[in-house]
Amino acid sequence: MKKDDKRIIKGLQGVIAGSTCLSDVNGESGKLIYCGYSISELISCSYEEICYLFLYGKLPNCNELNGITEQFKSYREVSKEILNFIRKKSQVNSPMSVLMSAVSMLNLNNIAYKDKTDLMNSSICLISRIATITASICRAKKGLDFIPNNFELCHVENFLYTSQGIMPDKFSIETLNTALVLHADHGFNASTFTCRVVASTLSDLISAIVAAIGALSGQLHGGANTAVMQMLLEIKSIDNVNDWLNDKLLNKEKIMGFGHRIYKTIDPRAIYLKRLSKIFGERTCNSKWFDISEKIEVLMKAKKGLYPNVDFYSASTYYYMGIDHEVFTIIFAMARIIGWISHYIEQINNNRIIRPESLYEGLNNRIYKSLDSRI
Amino acid sequence: MKKDDKRIIKGLQGVIAGSTCLSDVNGESGKLIYCGYSISELISCSYEEICYLFLYGKLPNCNELNGITEQFKSYREVSKEILNFIRKKSQVNSPMSVLMSAVSMLNLNNIAYKDKTDLMNSSICLISRIATITASICRAKKGLDFIPNNFELCHVENFLYTSQGIMPDKFSIETLNTALVLHADHGFNASTFTCRVVASTLSDLISAIVAAIGALSGQLHGGANTAVMQMLLEIKSIDNVNDWLNDKLLNKEKIMGFGHRIYKTIDPRAIYLKRLSKIFGERTCNSKWFDISEKIEVLMKAKKGLYPNVDFYSASTYYYMGIDHEVFTIIFAMARIIGWISHYIEQINNNRIIRPESLYEGLNNRIYKSLDSRI
Repeated sequence: MKKDDKRIIKGLQGVIAGSTCLSDVNGESGKLIYCGYSISELISCSYEEICYLFLYGKLPNCNELNGITEQFKSYREVSKEILNFIRKKSQVNSPMSVLMSAVSMLNLNNIAYKDKTDLMNSSICLISRIATITASICRAKKGLDFIPNNFELCHVENFLYTSQGIMPDKFSIETLNTALVLHADHGFNASTFTCRVVASTLSDLISAIVAAIGALSGQLHGGANTAVMQMLLEIKSIDNVNDWLNDKLLNKEKIMGFGHRIYKTIDPRAIYLKRLSKIFGERTCNSKWFDISEKIEVLMKAKKGLYPNVDFYSASTYYYMGIDHEVFTIIFAMARIIGWISHYIEQINNNRIIRPESLYEGLNNRIYKSLDSRI
Repeated sequence: MKKDDKRIIKGLQGVIAGSTCLSDVNGESGKLIYCGYSISELISCSYEEICYLFLYGKLPNCNELNGITEQFKSYREVSKEILNFIRKKSQVNSPMSVLMSAVSMLNLNNIAYKDKTDLMNSSICLISRIATITASICRAKKGLDFIPNNFELCHVENFLYTSQGIMPDKFSIETLNTALVLHADHGFNASTFTCRVVASTLSDLISAIVAAIGALSGQLHGGANTAVMQMLLEIKSIDNVNDWLNDKLLNKEKIMGFGHRIYKTIDPRAIYLKRLSKIFGERTCNSKWFDISEKIEVLMKAKKGLYPNVDFYSASTYYYMGIDHEVFTIIFAMARIIGWISHYIEQINNNRIIRPESLYEGLNNRIYKSLDSRI
């Protein structure tokens, strides 16, 4: 292709790569819609309700919610082989790399993706089991024994119970539920787009989800929440914020948790997470992490005109919940799985292989020399 | 985003998602360039030479070739844990799913991608080990014992020896080497593009490669070579080609191995693979698979104006080599790994996160009802 003919669109910024009925991100007004509902209305729904909404296109009634909740429970157990793998690897490898391997070992590869019932059951199975895998990684990373699943508990309660080993209080359950709901889907973000590219070759569901986990790992995507908490821990005290930030800005370093390709105003998810972080700080009589965060927010707005994104306040919120910052990103994956699955299904139902072009800017007409005559 | 504002570019057809110095696919003239050399000139290079070219931007001299060849050998062994996993899973799961898990278990996740030496060593290690993994899957799939690596042999020889259990003849080595060279890279195809999207979040090399393997699995991408051989086996005899093809075309079914998003003429790789298939058919006194293929090619050109792509003649060529059609796609992955790695490095060296937009076409302003009042 000749250079003059066409223009490179780096990062595919502004390119509309497809349509979706799943979520609408309005970057100008700062609104996020799931299947026609504003997230402000869905904020108190359970994660199971949100999964039902994405999978079936409507919010469930009581019977339907009971049905999907029981399905989640029925699929919860993962194989001993996967648990042994997690136990062995979690103290050496990164949580995201263990998650990627464990999910790829789930043996759901032979799903007949054209069979709708089969695909729905596999989807619910996958959502349920990724939570078990995530909780197991949280335990194994600290060298702690696994906690058996409690089938009296719902998805979020059971995750907190099996990852922390104590029965969670009501506020922790509500907070994590809200965080999972807020992370459920977000247009064609990099991991969801990865999932759709893989789906577009008519590959299987697990391959697409594993690929998405790979994309989420990067610090420019899901890895950012861990990086935000590392930043807060490094700053240590509210008194250090000013100097620390000035120093970073002077060196033109990126401040994690700020700015977003799509939002030109505050990320609506950040508003809810900020509120949760604040309440948690007050309840635990340790508002330090919230206070440092808020001060950074104010300064970044004043100095750079940038707003916090979803990763910024999720960091302190998770930390207040007693979650280690190294596992923040696997919790993001456990939430986003419903979005990835729904985009996989949407892609294969109206598919065209996603295959862009590239512009060759390398050398041309090099003269080939045989091995003996190369210098 | 309003519907009128912007246009969906389905499948990203014609969108230039970035620049590359690695390969140039000229779809109009049917030319393929690797780092400035036409593939017609590189066809007799060893796979090690091609890997050197992609990694270091130049063809190696004798010393450099010896160096990289020794490096390939030094990294060849994979852990017992991975071999046990392959042995256990290969008779149940698809070869591509076993490959995906095994590569994700390679424990190279902690590569400091900014350290160039580290990245080069990890790259060569990965290319070397994916061949060992691929050969092991070929053996395990048939329930056969693994063959220990032979460190006297080069990359392709050792692969043939360890996958087939006999010392390969010269023509088989040359044929597989040529096939690997022809499959090494191909612009922003779906798996390479997947690799670049994952790289663009600054995720690690293994995550990007695992994601690419996921994309290659699909039958609209790497899975096509397996599907072509299934088609040839189904047709059985050259006498059946006419009726079989007419029937498929009448039912508007897709004929695997034909057509390509980029090439508007014959895929240059198909020319070489056709030649190899023909010679192999003659040498083995069994030209049936070549003859059936060629007849399909002639009819498809006449009836649909479509040309064979890389998958079409690679199918019969691999089959003649005694390779089972179910493992064709993992051999594609073993060849394409150098392309994926090189694109990963190119992406992170001049990065911008790949994050397109989507157009929301779902419901709007749905009225939220509390759980109790939903029907």
